[in-house]
Amino acid sequence: MASLANVLEKIDANRDHALERLFRLMEIPSVSTDPAYAGDCARAAAWLAGELKSIGFEVSVRETSGHPMVAGHARAARPDVPHLLFYGHYDVQPPDPLDLWKTPPFAPRIAETPLGKQITGRGAADDKGQLMTFIEASRAFHETGGLPCHLTFLIEGEEETGSPSLPAFLQKTKDELKADMALVCDTNMWDRETPAVTTMLRGLVLEEVVIHGADRDLHSGMFGGAAVNPIHVLARVIADLHDEKGRITLPGFYNGVSELPDDVARQWRELPFDEAQFLGQVGLSVPAGEHGRSVLEMIWSRPTCDVNGILGGYTGKGSKTVLPAQASAKFSFRLVGAQDPRKISQSFRAFVKERLPADCRAEFASHGASGALHLPFSSEALSRASRALQAEWGKEPVLAGCGGSIPIVGAFKRDLGMDTLMIGFGLDDDRIHSPNEKYELSSFHKGARSWARVLYALAL
Amino acid sequence: MASLANVLEKIDANRDHALERLFRLMEIPSVSTDPAYAGDCARAAAWLAGELKSIGFEVSVRETSGHPMVAGHARAARPDVPHLLFYGHYDVQPPDPLDLWKTPPFAPRIAETPLGKQITGRGAADDKGQLMTFIEASRAFHETGGLPCHLTFLIEGEEETGSPSLPAFLQKTKDELKADMALVCDTNMWDRETPAVTTMLRGLVLEEVVIHGADRDLHSGMFGGAAVNPIHVLARVIADLHDEKGRITLPGFYNGVSELPDDVARQWRELPFDEAQFLGQVGLSVPAGEHGRSVLEMIWSRPTCDVNGILGGYTGKGSKTVLPAQASAKFSFRLVGAQDPRKISQSFRAFVKERLPADCRAEFASHGASGALHLPFSSEALSRASRALQAEWGKEPVLAGCGGSIPIVGAFKRDLGMDTLMIGFGLDDDRIHSPNEKYELSSFHKGARSWARVLYALAL
Repeated sequence: MASLANVLEKIDANRDHALERLFRLMEIPSVSTDPAYAGDCARAAAWLAGELKSIGFEVSVRETSGHPMVAGHARAARPDVPHLLFYGHYDVQPPDPLDLWKTPPFAPRIAETPLGKQITGRGAADDKGQLMTFIEASRAFHETGGLPCHLTFLIEGEEETGSPSLPAFLQKTKDELKADMALVCDTNMWDRETPAVTTMLRGLVLEEVVIHGADRDLHSGMFGGAAVNPIHVLARVIADLHDEKGRITLPGFYNGVSELPDDVARQWRELPFDEAQFLGQVGLSVPAGEHGRSVLEMIWSRPTCDVNGILGGYTGKGSKTVLPAQASAKFSFRLVGAQDPRKISQSFRAFVKERLPADCRAEFASHGASGALHLPFSSEALSRASRALQAEWGKEPVLAGCGGSIPIVGAFKRDLGMDTLMIGFGLDDDRIHSPNEKYELSSFHKGARSWARVLYALAL
Repeated sequence: MASLANVLEKIDANRDHALERLFRLMEIPSVSTDPAYAGDCARAAAWLAGELKSIGFEVSVRETSGHPMVAGHARAARPDVPHLLFYGHYDVQPPDPLDLWKTPPFAPRIAETPLGKQITGRGAADDKGQLMTFIEASRAFHETGGLPCHLTFLIEGEEETGSPSLPAFLQKTKDELKADMALVCDTNMWDRETPAVTTMLRGLVLEEVVIHGADRDLHSGMFGGAAVNPIHVLARVIADLHDEKGRITLPGFYNGVSELPDDVARQWRELPFDEAQFLGQVGLSVPAGEHGRSVLEMIWSRPTCDVNGILGGYTGKGSKTVLPAQASAKFSFRLVGAQDPRKISQSFRAFVKERLPADCRAEFASHGASGALHLPFSSEALSRASRALQAEWGKEPVLAGCGGSIPIVGAFKRDLGMDTLMIGFGLDDDRIHSPNEKYELSSFHKGARSWARVLYALAL
């Protein structure tokens, strides 16, 4: 095994080439939710397969009923070291609205800002930039004498659409993919100087509803007042989902939600978290969730219900006096603790059906359902990784919660019996899923160095 | 003045020639919305000018910034008779989708059907057929000794595109066009045996609202629970606009709305109106409006509030866990009685603003505001016209309401201080604005006879 110093030197020496490699990946518009980009998703998978081959991995691109998976394996020089599975995703969110981008989303570049250099473009952070930190760390080991741990890569192309092909794939490849622990690089630092290990992840239930009324669009002069309006029905459902204190009213929704343990609650209270700054960065000033909760609680350890999209009737310029035949909305529920995704989906559908007036029907679709996750604070791997991060950044990492969901982490626990160590170098202002997504150049470079230190520490 | 019997005989004798004249007008594809047909609109105007000249009118074709107006004047033999303004329009809707027409839209012909002969082609009913009933009645008077009333014609070519040139034209020609009363032939009979006079038109207030929250789209994992969601805010507004009895909750909304006079309420209750059939034709079964009101009341004499369109967040395929920066909706209010459109717009905007949580703002746009119109049931002209129609059809005419709006009628009231008598011979199944538009041959012939009777009655 090479010395850690040599590996870190190699990462420093590779800086410019590493950035070029990331740009090649970011130029591929691998938008998973839109079938028009299926070819680009396949291209991104093939590009990553080539990349892993070039650093000594045995790689295969596996077809699925959706976008392909990339799987790769390489052994460490020493046999008696842990086997780690690294998971990442090459797909990205749609770039729209396009007119809000300052530079084209799929033409990555470096922007000079008062705070330093930033990599800009769709996927800069989520997850192409983060994924490539780990590949660059692996490359540096490869170029300086070999890996410190046995490594398996699993890179999918459907993370942004709820990973529909993943469960079946994991079932089929259990024996191939099973490792001692999983690593994921898709989370944030505490701030631009302080690293973080994410130990709690909210789950996610995605439901789409179409409310149908009359069998055609109607003229509101002819029928207005007498015909049911599906937009009104949908609005009533949405309005009823929260009470006046910001609590969610679905029956049974809070089953399995517990209060934080005292010590964790204390750690979070003592974190220098500036609510005004967090909200202020996006033009807000007042937390809009459950009354009596801090913002960190709201986004890390409390469940939510949000409408992510709504559409009905005429939405062009001017007016059209139409009573639409249907209206639709996409709902997401963030889950915590032991909330049961299946029960919440059922409760939601019953809630909608109870509010359907005569002549209306509801059509449902699920876009995914996964429970919340928690890595024990007593984990040995967590301690080693924390010390490695402290060595790189000079500050103790925050053991954070995460508002988002990473369904794969649940699948690893459920199907492969593995815990997951989630370390990432994103920042809150990276604008992932929004126009002008960016990733700090320092996150990219020190992220690769951090992974080298973590891998080295886990091998000892 | 000729005897009414002579005039009716003349109309009967002219039947075949009248139909040929209508066919000549229908052969001109005067589609106002498509600039490619501007020349045809001008041809239709010129043709009508010639037609009116041939029956003794002083006619001029007036250029506008859009399609030309035809104005014509003729005096009755007796001086001490009312002066009436007849309004119609020569423009038609586009004929597409062309492949759904059984015969070409601009090659009018007579179709034999189990219910009788029908004139088929674009404009058969709306409004060329209806307009020509009045011109044929005028012709018969001209050919039998002169008009019973002083008559002015105003025929425009932009009705199907919202009459953009009309307001300025009315302002400019106020003194020329002002008459004792206006006549419009652009409405329907109650059924194929029962005539109708339309005495109530609902007004229309069109409002668009955009609710703004954060200054960008947010990731619902990162911010969900803490950031305000404009879709929820909008849904709350929409849900709050109706109470559980279907009444609209805007403060002051029902000011100026009165209950129907007993006799009209009784007439409407006794009409053979099949609610199940009316709703069933569009796949509905239960009236969705104010509890305790009949469907006819709901669509003729009660005000409404409907959302005609709503849009926010991600509405493509699949899911996107976005908290949108904004959400928008288009609202329409149908007004009745003396409801003040300006006050309703103000009340609505205040209602929205009251429901804005911290960090949200609302942006408003108006797409129009017009009050309801009502010809008093006590009007002497209405009584005379009703008796005239009863003489022709053998049945008492229905004093109907109309759920839609006819903006010209509002302009006549507002700008020229005239009430309008709306009598038309269309049927609900005429397919106006759709392929295979038709007009009953009996509507055309008895329509001309009806106008002869009405003009005669108004002159007495």
